[in-house]
Amino acid sequence: MFEYAFSPRYLEVDQQGVVFNMWYLGYFDDAMAAFLAHLGHPYPQLLLDGDDVMLVRSELDWTAGVRFGDAAVVAVSVEAIGTTSFTLRFEVRRGIEVTCRGRTVYVMIGTDGSGKRPVPAELRKALSARLAT
Amino acid sequence: MFEYAFSPRYLEVDQQGVVFNMWYLGYFDDAMAAFLAHLGHPYPQLLLDGDDVMLVRSELDWTAGVRFGDAAVVAVSVEAIGTTSFTLRFEVRRGIEVTCRGRTVYVMIGTDGSGKRPVPAELRKALSARLAT
Amino acid sequence: MFEYAFSPRYLEVDQQGVVFNMWYLGYFDDAMAAFLAHLGHPYPQLLLDGDDVMLVRSELDWTAGVRFGDAAVVAVSVEAIGTTSFTLRFEVRRGIEVTCRGRTVYVMIGTDGSGKRPVPAELRKALSARLAT
Amino acid sequence: MFEYAFSPRYLEVDQQGVVFNMWYLGYFDDAMAAFLAHLGHPYPQLLLDGDDVMLVRSELDWTAGVRFGDAAVVAVSVEAIGTTSFTLRFEVRRGIEVTCRGRTVYVMIGTDGSGKRPVPAELRKALSARLAT
Repeated sequence: MFEYAFSPRYLEVDQQGVVFNMWYLGYFDDAMAAFLAHLGHPYPQLLLDGDDVMLVRSELDWTAGVRFGDAAVVAVSVEAIGTTSFTLRFEVRRGIEVTCRGRTVYVMIGTDGSGKRPVPAELRKALSARLAT
Repeated sequence: MFEYAFSPRYLEVDQQGVVFNMWYLGYFDDAMAAFLAHLGHPYPQLLLDGDDVMLVRSELDWTAGVRFGDAAVVAVSVEAIGTTSFTLRFEVRRGIEVTCRGRTVYVMIGTDGSGKRPVPAELRKALSARLAT
Repeated sequence: MFEYAFSPRYLEVDQQGVVFNMWYLGYFDDAMAAFLAHLGHPYPQLLLDGDDVMLVRSELDWTAGVRFGDAAVVAVSVEAIGTTSFTLRFEVRRGIEVTCRGRTVYVMIGTDGSGKRPVPAELRKALSARLAT
Repeated sequence: MFEYAFSPRYLEVDQQGVVFNMWYLGYFDDAMAAFLAHLGHPYPQLLLDGDDVMLVRSELDWTAGVRFGDAAVVAVSVEAIGTTSFTLRFEVRRGIEVTCRGRTVYVMIGTDGSGKRPVPAELRKALSARLAT
């Protein structure tokens, strides 16, 4: 499974001593971009091709907080692929401990404001090969 | 229904020209704090009383983006109250348009590291009076 | 003097219990946008006119931290106006206490990538009327 | 010279297509923490020893913007060491291009609220060995 390594920044940690909740959506975004690049479809290239992604739904379940300086990863897997959308699953792991689970539904859109469009064939193929079973 | 008014900051808007997804969790947090203050239980006072809240689950559904300078509100309602937790619903509205719906489950914990604890009686009472029907 | 009122957000406060340093540049940006709007030249309108501003220098001096929920303002004044740039001074105040002083030099540029351009005459006039003496 | 490698995050890029100004203070903070760790004095260890740092002044000069996905570094050097403070210089570099220069003055304080204190002898020694000439 693809893993995006990161370490929480000091600026992300709040008075409770753990990362403030919103930064997890930032981690998922970073992990998504790294995952697409890993698949050979870097996000900046998608944009150049006139394709973009828009979030329509995100879910997050936390079981523990992560702290400044922790060594952590976001594991990324593909949950579903539709005609114009795909769904990624995320797990934040610190060692063997899963501290947060998330999933996000992305809709493919044109950068020209033309709205929804099919997931490009090559990207679909790459995502399909990673479908969680 | 309680409404927390806000306007997206320039720094929250990304290359797509709309607010980046993670800031919505920031808006929900601001709205939660404003809601608790409105109920007579400001978050800083909760902390002084040794009580704190921890997020265990958040969901977000977006139907449109908001832009720099938009006049918007987060409408807050109470979906559920458990023994040691409560669930708030959020709607981001720009005029009559709902652009994002969210819900977050908060668990009551002690600031002393003692873990879960019952929702304080007075707060429970105030939340109950706001239960969505 | 123009004052932009704000209250630090929970998400801006770090483990030290005070607002993390970078957010002050966010406050200055918010205050600059509010100041331009107050002068009758809202930033979104500048953009529509093909004008934009680019930061070339910022300075910040802190004497105290601000905390979640503090009632604070950023006082804005005009320090200098050049041909293609202007300089704003910022003071973060909590009651009568100044907790941070800042200044930022903005250069006027075209949104079309054409580089530096003169400060528009009407904006220059409005800024000049506010020059700190 | 010590270099902290980073790549701008999508969430840090604004409507202008370049990193929003405040994030540079975040990069400097990340670079400072990495630099202290490199010197054998990780920030979390400083905290455990009862020492902390407080920013009293920062300056930033921008000559170019950095973009999502750029490969960049923050080069860190020591400009000055006082009794209770030290000053770091930062250069954001993309390849051989310096896009931003900064400097920050840190004051050593106790985590117990006792105020200013001398820079610990071992940290002073490590910083001195890195003084820019």
